[in-house]
Amino acid sequence: MTTTGRHLVDLDRATATGLLASVPVGRLVWDGSAGLTAIPVNHVWQDDRVLIRTTAYSAIARECDDQLVAYEADDLDAGSRTGWSVLVRGRASIQWHADAAEADTAPWPGGPRPLVLAIEVVSVEGRRLVPAEH
Amino acid sequence: MTTTGRHLVDLDRATATGLLASVPVGRLVWDGSAGLTAIPVNHVWQDDRVLIRTTAYSAIARECDDQLVAYEADDLDAGSRTGWSVLVRGRASIQWHADAAEADTAPWPGGPRPLVLAIEVVSVEGRRLVPAEH
Repeated sequence: MTTTGRHLVDLDRATATGLLASVPVGRLVWDGSAGLTAIPVNHVWQDDRVLIRTTAYSAIARECDDQLVAYEADDLDAGSRTGWSVLVRGRASIQWHADAAEADTAPWPGGPRPLVLAIEVVSVEGRRLVPAEH
Repeated sequence: MTTTGRHLVDLDRATATGLLASVPVGRLVWDGSAGLTAIPVNHVWQDDRVLIRTTAYSAIARECDDQLVAYEADDLDAGSRTGWSVLVRGRASIQWHADAAEADTAPWPGGPRPLVLAIEVVSVEGRRLVPAEH
């Protein structure tokens, strides 16, 4: 088997949040009106919070304020079949008075995204899939 | 702004499931004992179902059988800031009598994963982030 020996290693919190901070995109997860939802968004990691920019009319703005949500980021390499993933859980809240500069998440879609959603982190889990030892 | 003009386009079901089938990895999302959970797993798309392999002692096996779950896959390019994402919702069930060959998902971590979890699809959403028109 080609997969023999590759195994998962738990990451400590500092390592996991450092990896989360190192990538521009993750997936916001919530239990919304249409059911469990996970969509890719741009984020920044700042002061132990995940910050996301969104529009006032988005499902994120309508459904995530003051809710428990999760946020997942990963970097997986299909070639070597290795990589890492981080899962943050916490309470999301819209920052009505946030300075736009505070969350310089540089959203990939065009158009203004004036609202900032902040996830106050409750728990952090991280795992790395590493090659077999030599 | 560098993001001006890039925009999201909804994908039809056939396009969305075709993209899901074209990648080896997605994120299984469920509302578990520890809260909302999303973790990367290997999948195959077969007969309108998402199939994943797992172990009998995994959180997936303990918590997802006969539950409504979601499954997200994407391919995002940080260079061009374009890409696609697909979100499937459906009911998961462990296939106790599944032929292991039926779900040849080739899990990246080593070790046996004898259980097959099948997600019977209820809904499919897909979006593509495309560059501005010329």
